[in-house]
Amino acid sequence: MSKPLGFEKPLGMRDILPESLAKQRHLELALRRCIERWGYEEILTPSLEYYDTVGTASATLADRMFKLLDKQGHTVVLRPDMTTPIARVVSSLYKDVPLPIRLFYQANVFRAQEKEAGRNAEFFQTGIELIGDATVDADAEAIALAVFCLQAAEVPTFRIAIGHVDFIDGLLDEIVPDQEVQAQFRRYLHDRDFVGYRQLADTLDVTDEQRRRLHALLRLRGGKGKIAEARDLTINGKARKAVETVASLWEALEAYGVTDYLLLDFNLISNLNYYTGIVFEGYAADLGSPLVGGGRYDRLLAQFGRPTPATGFAVKMDRLMQVTAVDVEPQRPRKLLCYAPARRQEALQAAQQLRQDGAIVVTRCIHTKTEWQECRSQADAEVILLTDQEE
Amino acid sequence: MSKPLGFEKPLGMRDILPESLAKQRHLELALRRCIERWGYEEILTPSLEYYDTVGTASATLADRMFKLLDKQGHTVVLRPDMTTPIARVVSSLYKDVPLPIRLFYQANVFRAQEKEAGRNAEFFQTGIELIGDATVDADAEAIALAVFCLQAAEVPTFRIAIGHVDFIDGLLDEIVPDQEVQAQFRRYLHDRDFVGYRQLADTLDVTDEQRRRLHALLRLRGGKGKIAEARDLTINGKARKAVETVASLWEALEAYGVTDYLLLDFNLISNLNYYTGIVFEGYAADLGSPLVGGGRYDRLLAQFGRPTPATGFAVKMDRLMQVTAVDVEPQRPRKLLCYAPARRQEALQAAQQLRQDGAIVVTRCIHTKTEWQECRSQADAEVILLTDQEE
Repeated sequence: MSKPLGFEKPLGMRDILPESLAKQRHLELALRRCIERWGYEEILTPSLEYYDTVGTASATLADRMFKLLDKQGHTVVLRPDMTTPIARVVSSLYKDVPLPIRLFYQANVFRAQEKEAGRNAEFFQTGIELIGDATVDADAEAIALAVFCLQAAEVPTFRIAIGHVDFIDGLLDEIVPDQEVQAQFRRYLHDRDFVGYRQLADTLDVTDEQRRRLHALLRLRGGKGKIAEARDLTINGKARKAVETVASLWEALEAYGVTDYLLLDFNLISNLNYYTGIVFEGYAADLGSPLVGGGRYDRLLAQFGRPTPATGFAVKMDRLMQVTAVDVEPQRPRKLLCYAPARRQEALQAAQQLRQDGAIVVTRCIHTKTEWQECRSQADAEVILLTDQEE
Repeated sequence: MSKPLGFEKPLGMRDILPESLAKQRHLELALRRCIERWGYEEILTPSLEYYDTVGTASATLADRMFKLLDKQGHTVVLRPDMTTPIARVVSSLYKDVPLPIRLFYQANVFRAQEKEAGRNAEFFQTGIELIGDATVDADAEAIALAVFCLQAAEVPTFRIAIGHVDFIDGLLDEIVPDQEVQAQFRRYLHDRDFVGYRQLADTLDVTDEQRRRLHALLRLRGGKGKIAEARDLTINGKARKAVETVASLWEALEAYGVTDYLLLDFNLISNLNYYTGIVFEGYAADLGSPLVGGGRYDRLLAQFGRPTPATGFAVKMDRLMQVTAVDVEPQRPRKLLCYAPARRQEALQAAQQLRQDGAIVVTRCIHTKTEWQECRSQADAEVILLTDQEE
């Protein structure tokens, strides 16, 4: 391998320049203000965690984590997500805090990239965790809050798709007992490869009625009416129970008045092993990847010794930046106050007064005629001149 | 080594809980608002940098950096400071941006800790860089802005000590030609070990007059009058020139009206190899370590191929947290809205109206008498009850 050039950055790492950062900060503040009003409190966990604690409990694959050895010889990882460290806190420092606990974060997380493909290895998330409430009311709160967040972030057109992992699991259990074939179906759904899914369904040794049901799953994407269709597709047990949960959830979401932004999607699989119930993903027009990912994860906290149901979501800030209507003017110098050396005190005091009144002021002591000319020709700032004589 | 327990964090890593984080965010915002008005624009660089670029150029010692190998086999470090990455940006992405360039940052930086000594391995800084201006006006701007920052952060009592590396260098050159002895003196000054310094001065083979001047250096700490004392102590050359620079700087700072917060300290050495001119450190009452560190670093940018003078400072947020008078009320739930299932829609809409009016509202659906009693006994929130009948 060659030595990196003087200006190079590691793969997937990037500088965020003022133009973009001002926009990101604006969006972070808008989300923070929205989330705080729902009673969530901000928390921040360290950038580095032990692999044996947070690393192994995380939904992120081990080979996608940045790993290093600390001075004590332990394997340490750059946090792959914020949900797992928060589960650690809720199980330790917060072990005596009564449930439910509402926390939020605005933080960077890390994902090692294999190849130069323009994918970020460090990215920013704003997310919430609602811990200790197993009811659909909690799921509804998370989804409604996600809607209000995307509104606060001025995303012009978006939909949040809602599914339930038990619906797919239950339906497959009813039709395809073979676990490996089930895994194949799940993989196709996860990858949104419906052609592959259909081919597999067509070649499978099942009854025509069962094949019809496998195909019908793909059509379970739409409004409230899909609940009845989903119900018709299940015989009993797990999948049926999931439909009833989704039906209750939808009712709660109607009470929030947010269903115009929602979509039922009974074939949604947003993460292969992590979620345990309701799952949801937010999509914006013209953006292929989800802007928001969330759902119920009732098994994570048990890994830290405090078995507790939980739900939450994360907004991916980089994707939000691409779709928001927010257009933040970069904080360019608004006023350039140029002064002759003899008028320094007057100039600096005037500048400070202008700043106190809210203006952005850059000061510059001017010594030569050329410099005075430079000042007069500034295009991107209002120039104030405190000249000596008739300079 | 033993496997870490389920809740443990790597050495020097910590969780920042809502109580502290709310205060930190408040201070960050106060500093941001102050700094932006001076025309500085925020920038953010990646958490990971190549060791061969930013790592080697940084003032941080290599064995204090967190190092890892990336998937391409390069050594990568967690950024040890923000000044070096910003120098990289100014020399690459910003290479065509005209000077001077004013940038600021609010970011975490990393320092590997050897032992359990309560020292943070990850800490937060707010800092500015004024790049491309070699005049004392630039140094004065940095120092004045540091004063305004500490005022904005409500530090009740603070002083910024100002020195110049060439004064000590020049004085030692005049008296002690031996580079090793010079290094010893510098080390004592850096460590503020004045006993060690005096002992070394007393045992040295120099004239009484030279010894007197070595001792006198330690007294060069105080108000404007110290400039004349410092001038008397130098013969000519480097040290004398440094005194005249400090004299001009002081004049500029008088024009800013900030000298009440300043202190001249001609024996200040804040970093052994990094600074090249004016240096300064901010101290608060009852805090042993500096709250602010800054100074001129005219050689750093040349390492990235754009030789340019620069000055700047960083505020250490963790120390600021200890001394600020700001006392932020944590964003505890202000209102708890408990509702009977039949009144859900009314409750959720009412909650949203309250949030739009600025209140923090947590909602809870209540199903049992015990739960209603729980709600009524909440002490840390204003409880609103939307009961069904006479529950």
